Amino acid sequence: MASPEIEALTQALARLPGLGPRSARRAVLHLLKKRETALTPLLRALETVNERLSTCSTCGNVDTSDPCAICADPRRDQRSLCVVEEVADLWALERSRLFPGRFHVLGGRLSALEGVRPEDLSVDRLVARVSGGGIDEVVLATNATLEGQTTAHYIAERLESFPIRLTRLAHGLPVGGELDYLDEGTLAQALRARRPID
Amino acid sequence: MASPEIEALTQALARLPGLGPRSARRAVLHLLKKRETALTPLLRALETVNERLSTCSTCGNVDTSDPCAICADPRRDQRSLCVVEEVADLWALERSRLFPGRFHVLGGRLSALEGVRPEDLSVDRLVARVSGGGIDEVVLATNATLEGQTTAHYIAERLESFPIRLTRLAHGLPVGGELDYLDEGTLAQALRARRPID
Repeated sequence: MASPEIEALTQALARLPGLGPRSARRAVLHLLKKRETALTPLLRALETVNERLSTCSTCGNVDTSDPCAICADPRRDQRSLCVVEEVADLWALERSRLFPGRFHVLGGRLSALEGVRPEDLSVDRLVARVSGGGIDEVVLATNATLEGQTTAHYIAERLESFPIRLTRLAHGLPVGGELDYLDEGTLAQALRARRPID
Repeated sequence: MASPEIEALTQALARLPGLGPRSARRAVLHLLKKRETALTPLLRALETVNERLSTCSTCGNVDTSDPCAICADPRRDQRSLCVVEEVADLWALERSRLFPGRFHVLGGRLSALEGVRPEDLSVDRLVARVSGGGIDEVVLATNATLEGQTTAHYIAERLESFPIRLTRLAHGLPVGGELDYLDEGTLAQALRARRPID
């Protein structure tokens, strides 16, 4: 059997999403075989992330500075705020480079099943940001899942007393989507939100 | 977009077998979200492996000591040697706890396609071990692939002048195997090596 050190590394890797015990073992073997080209770079990258990265105390993004590069960028529209569930959602939106404003990362979604309550998310901090003033629009960009929509509803209620425009991402056919393969929910949303051809 | 530190970690993880760019990004997010329970243990485990593990200069196993625990164990049968392609194969055999002797890890298999020649494997070291004397049997436990069998053939030729018993693992039906789903090669081997019912 492998040594305890290797077992510990295998277990640490197996806990990553997407890797099971078997693929973790294969990954460990790869790391042991390619020490210079695989193990060392991974070790250095983890050390750097561990030392340098922290959570932005304003928006919840992960970056080397606090406030993060997005919050600190004066060219970003200070008056619009996009609320997302996770840092990954922020990255997805940033890759598209379509949103000119700033973000607010909730850190999850309300879920009765997983026991996630409003106080587990950064909703209070969002309300504080909005009540601080200077924000015209809040885009609720939670996922189009039941839990994401519940979360959006809850936030909308918490923000309804403020003089801001509250919006959410449009639902409908994804680009390239074929009607025949789409679920009824998406079709219903797409039909309800139909727009005149211009 | 994510910071360069995160990109570097994502790339280092994406190079592991079993993880692509997408799952590597998910793994990085998991590590960032669970710093104490995921990132720190992984970092520590990698550091420990990097500091403590080395390759056994006798057999090619990976362990904290050189010679490794298997080579140093006086209770193991010194007279029989099992030749495997990779450390993973050694681990698989050790998990079964069926082989009482010691090992020799080749570090790969002969492959014209991948340009792996005899001098890239530890065949010379194997010949030296055998010519050193004290070994009665060498079990060639290379994989049942074309390349594994070619490698076994080559090693058998290199060892034929020594007064030892050369054996290989049996081929045949895997336990639980159904004839209907087996390839012809396995069926042919199983039929050719059929044994009387005792």
